[in-house]
Amino acid sequence: MVSPVEQAQALTPAAVEAAYALIRPYVHRTPLLTCRTLDTIASTPQSPESLVGTPFEGQTPARPRFRFFFKCENLQRIGAFKARGAFHALLRLIEERGEDEVKRRGVITHSSGNHAQALALAASTLHVPAYIVMPHISTSSKIAGTRSYGAEIIFSGSTSVEREAVVAEIQAKTNAILVPPYDDFNIICGQGTTGLELEAQYTEQVGSRALDAVITPVGGGGLNSGVATFFSDKSTRVFGAEPIFEGADDCRRGLQAGERVAKVSTLTIADGLRTPVGLLNWQVISNKRKVEGVFAVTEEQIMAAMRLVFERMKVVVEPSAVVGLAVCLFDEGFRRRVEQEGGDNGWDVAVVFSGGNTTLEAVAKLFG
Amino acid sequence: MVSPVEQAQALTPAAVEAAYALIRPYVHRTPLLTCRTLDTIASTPQSPESLVGTPFEGQTPARPRFRFFFKCENLQRIGAFKARGAFHALLRLIEERGEDEVKRRGVITHSSGNHAQALALAASTLHVPAYIVMPHISTSSKIAGTRSYGAEIIFSGSTSVEREAVVAEIQAKTNAILVPPYDDFNIICGQGTTGLELEAQYTEQVGSRALDAVITPVGGGGLNSGVATFFSDKSTRVFGAEPIFEGADDCRRGLQAGERVAKVSTLTIADGLRTPVGLLNWQVISNKRKVEGVFAVTEEQIMAAMRLVFERMKVVVEPSAVVGLAVCLFDEGFRRRVEQEGGDNGWDVAVVFSGGNTTLEAVAKLFG
Repeated sequence: MVSPVEQAQALTPAAVEAAYALIRPYVHRTPLLTCRTLDTIASTPQSPESLVGTPFEGQTPARPRFRFFFKCENLQRIGAFKARGAFHALLRLIEERGEDEVKRRGVITHSSGNHAQALALAASTLHVPAYIVMPHISTSSKIAGTRSYGAEIIFSGSTSVEREAVVAEIQAKTNAILVPPYDDFNIICGQGTTGLELEAQYTEQVGSRALDAVITPVGGGGLNSGVATFFSDKSTRVFGAEPIFEGADDCRRGLQAGERVAKVSTLTIADGLRTPVGLLNWQVISNKRKVEGVFAVTEEQIMAAMRLVFERMKVVVEPSAVVGLAVCLFDEGFRRRVEQEGGDNGWDVAVVFSGGNTTLEAVAKLFG
Repeated sequence: MVSPVEQAQALTPAAVEAAYALIRPYVHRTPLLTCRTLDTIASTPQSPESLVGTPFEGQTPARPRFRFFFKCENLQRIGAFKARGAFHALLRLIEERGEDEVKRRGVITHSSGNHAQALALAASTLHVPAYIVMPHISTSSKIAGTRSYGAEIIFSGSTSVEREAVVAEIQAKTNAILVPPYDDFNIICGQGTTGLELEAQYTEQVGSRALDAVITPVGGGGLNSGVATFFSDKSTRVFGAEPIFEGADDCRRGLQAGERVAKVSTLTIADGLRTPVGLLNWQVISNKRKVEGVFAVTEEQIMAAMRLVFERMKVVVEPSAVVGLAVCLFDEGFRRRVEQEGGDNGWDVAVVFSGGNTTLEAVAKLFG
């Protein structure tokens, strides 16, 4: 086995470029949208009252200037960026082990979310059997979504011990190859293509200026570490965003303590971000030259950001998708930095909307 | 006064082109989106059970083939196509009466919906005072939206008699010029630019084929009659769509009876379509060579279409916006026609999403 430290050294912009060449025929080039209304709202200082009870109480609210570029991975295939990593991991498996072996053995993962659907889609597209272990409490729409791509679903209990036991059982029977959701070299390179694509689109739209910053959600860290890998030799700063609820800000806490937090138990509404950051992902994200900081937001701030995206941009996003925007809108530490470093010009910030897989019922439950 | 019949004769494609030249700097060229998932769903026959209780019970479900092109006027300024008509009407007023007179007198309308915000935006952009009479029961988000464009809001009772009395009172004081929401030559030409734009975008995307059909919602009929005016010298067929609830299908009933229905009282969830079709609009829509048919859908069908757009396309639309899609999905008469005339090639159908002005609370109320 190659250690995470050694693997991290191989995570280079060139590896992301190679991933893109491979997956390009299989994924959407999702739009990079602008919204002047959201620029104006984020560029307006918060009220002094809204800072009461925060570390910034009593200070003059920051006056940052934002121009946003929203990378709409909610419009990606299966409704989330996860399609990129799943196609890349599977295409590499076929390249490395040969089509016959991969088709004979099949692939397996355990997930109740977007990775399950992504792997199911990639497998059906490439004619590989897929086994998806899902907790039996998964919502019926997610089960139906995964099944609609032709994957075989095996139900398990909802703890990770119960899930992994079922995975081992299926692997013993089928010899299926595990495709992990985020803590994996090829998954990280695949998700990193989000950064490559948004940078190209930004240049098409804006011209020769360099993007000042990118902010993405951090759950297991596949997206954030992939995007940071792509930008690691460029001037664009990369930031991460997490929910704070019930300790979901494990990455931020780990960075403060100088050690990865390995366990998280949270029921944040940002359900894609309930997992701890992975080992390989941590190697990238904890490197200050790659990721400059990770910020965290409250459930109320996530809901306020969702409302703006829904009502002003008319775009459907899942709660996990808007934590980066919520940081830009509400985190005074981040806003102060944009004010100080961006000055009168402000910053051009790419905000990755990671996914849009929610239902009208789920929205009704949150906002009803 | 010129009669509606005479005015209708002047409603030509050239009049829509002239409108477009005038408003182009002020409105968004909204995207024309495709969605393979929705194509597949609409191109799948309905189940025989779903036809029980309809006039098509017992018949073999139609096998139409659809390729959709969604004209996203929910992404238009103020969140609806109404911006087109309002800018056009106001720019023409200035052209015809001079800037001084229009700025001195101002403009007035009564509306609780998208026309109010559209006129407020056009007036503030062109530095003309605007008076908007709104029922005091209007939702606070609509009042705030209209006020944010700098218009003066005057509250009234909610019946049309009460509203018109307040308009007359303000006009007596200010001499403000009335800009009606739909029954007006310049408004119709402005809304018709939606058709002009989508045809150009369709040609860019698809090449030299002609679009088979366009379907738009019909409330007062400004959008539908404008679009039909633009296509009146082309092979593209134009259709209208209405809600059926509590007689909101006034246009369809009028066509059947051979006489416009002048009064409607409905609380359909498609709140932009509660008005009867206007006199001038009726001149166009009742002309079979311009509008080939108007279809109507139930509240449940509107909600099912909203759900698909929200969950599959990840796009926020208001209920009024999806009646055209609901016709394509559920109306067996329309579907049979597409099967018969489109054959194996099917039809390329442009569906106009008229607006996206809804709130998370409103969605929660519908789907909670």
